[in-house]
Amino acid sequence: MEFEFLEWLRTQTRPHPRLHVGPGDDAASLFMGRERDLVITTDLLTDGVDFVLAECDPRRVGRKALAVNLSDLAAMAARPFAALVSVALPARHAGPLARAIHEGILELAGRHDVALAGGDTNTWDGRLVISVTALGEAPARGVLRRDGARPGDVLLATGDFGGSILGRHFDFEPRVREASLLHRAYELHAGIDVSDGLSLDLSRVAHESHCGVVLSLPDIPINPAAVECAETDKTGRSPLDHALTDGEDFELLLAVPADSATRIVRDQPLDVPVTRMGEFVEDPGLWALGSDGKRRPLPARGWQHREWQEPDT
Amino acid sequence: MEFEFLEWLRTQTRPHPRLHVGPGDDAASLFMGRERDLVITTDLLTDGVDFVLAECDPRRVGRKALAVNLSDLAAMAARPFAALVSVALPARHAGPLARAIHEGILELAGRHDVALAGGDTNTWDGRLVISVTALGEAPARGVLRRDGARPGDVLLATGDFGGSILGRHFDFEPRVREASLLHRAYELHAGIDVSDGLSLDLSRVAHESHCGVVLSLPDIPINPAAVECAETDKTGRSPLDHALTDGEDFELLLAVPADSATRIVRDQPLDVPVTRMGEFVEDPGLWALGSDGKRRPLPARGWQHREWQEPDT
Repeated sequence: MEFEFLEWLRTQTRPHPRLHVGPGDDAASLFMGRERDLVITTDLLTDGVDFVLAECDPRRVGRKALAVNLSDLAAMAARPFAALVSVALPARHAGPLARAIHEGILELAGRHDVALAGGDTNTWDGRLVISVTALGEAPARGVLRRDGARPGDVLLATGDFGGSILGRHFDFEPRVREASLLHRAYELHAGIDVSDGLSLDLSRVAHESHCGVVLSLPDIPINPAAVECAETDKTGRSPLDHALTDGEDFELLLAVPADSATRIVRDQPLDVPVTRMGEFVEDPGLWALGSDGKRRPLPARGWQHREWQEPDT
Repeated sequence: MEFEFLEWLRTQTRPHPRLHVGPGDDAASLFMGRERDLVITTDLLTDGVDFVLAECDPRRVGRKALAVNLSDLAAMAARPFAALVSVALPARHAGPLARAIHEGILELAGRHDVALAGGDTNTWDGRLVISVTALGEAPARGVLRRDGARPGDVLLATGDFGGSILGRHFDFEPRVREASLLHRAYELHAGIDVSDGLSLDLSRVAHESHCGVVLSLPDIPINPAAVECAETDKTGRSPLDHALTDGEDFELLLAVPADSATRIVRDQPLDVPVTRMGEFVEDPGLWALGSDGKRRPLPARGWQHREWQEPDT
């Protein structure tokens, strides 16, 4: 949610005994009266913003609509088990479009053992809108929040960054199993998935944790697509700039105690590389450490909606 | 969900151990590993179909978006405790619009002790779309499904019907407490809330329960708004016809064993009247009993989307 809107919302609501983690994190965590919380998240995708229906297979659109939600659950280290899918379909070809979207959803859902628990299928004279809500079970250690980073923590990341627009924003693998494994086997302090941009999402972890973070620019793993974007687009932006700001990488950023980080980087326990990219510090804000060894402020940039900035919650 | 689409969807999915009630009822019921199931439902509302933003206060739109979901939980006799709200906002005035919508939501949520657990706030160049997901706790006796009616059951209804378009479709009270009270104190076999139309929703209970139902036309409680509609619109439709087909009454239709129905009608335990309107029978389909005492087939009519018929699930 947009920051100012979220702040306003918080003034309008009282604490609720079941709401262990409310709006503002990657997902909400709700007490269900037993040892594990229910973790729940929702994302709404619109034609022209999150995808261009005229230019892509609707199966990929459906897959993405579920995958972004699974990525939010991964960022809480939760295990997904169900999803609900609502659509506003352009009335023309509504039936075939609904089926194609659900084919993409069901393929991914099946691989993660996620039950399709319901939905609402509408037609209208507007463009395609898909809203997915995903449910997960909190891990035994409790959810991985974004506000738990502490000065001295190491910044780790899965995978690499930049250029997702060339296709990865549709076909990425949500890091569900990776987050569960790391959270179970190592001590982690905080986590987020990169949806709006590496620098922007990282700045949110620092802000919510009331500390700062120094990002070591030479250590950022850059996806080949970022290089391709830098070569082919006319903006003059470098591969590093694409990696910092493109967003929709859906990789995990983790704040990890130093000894635990050392073990993770040594063990490389995942199928995807885990890389050390910086550290959390007392000084608030986002800082860049260049190849010259100097620290300077780094702007938090990424995907911003026209009117305001609004990550999902 | 639209019937054919739902049938297709069922061929695409396997049973999931947690999914006690899946797509096709008013809400899904999910096993959470303790004595009570989680009950969850979602509804998506679009500008031009479910409301006309240019002609109404956005607070009423927000309120309706939550209320229709609470009504679905009521139809399962579940107790709501949380909701998530996603919006696609027209970029112009997105901030004030988001706040007004949430003011309407929060007022109703507060009265039902429902926590706002999250959401996703987007802007685009399309019209307003609101998607709400509501979570509830199953009652101790288990949820009230729509497929449990049996021949010999009495058809009871809360409140009255018809003419909701004059304002009640925004301002109705979801029958949450009423459903909980009845389900706890009396034996009920099946229930549904009237969203698409009395005759259409009633036919769904009969169809899902593999039986038929005879609706006693003279016994249908008609809302004064249905009379007003009949007098002022140019369609020549009677107040009864409005009551049968208008929809968005959000009253409960219940299939109740005869002795239990007799006690409910005698006790009148709710703030709203409970009326006997007919009975379930062996013969499949929807039947009307007129004032002449004769039974004839009654068409199941109500709100149908342009391309297909699609109640929420």
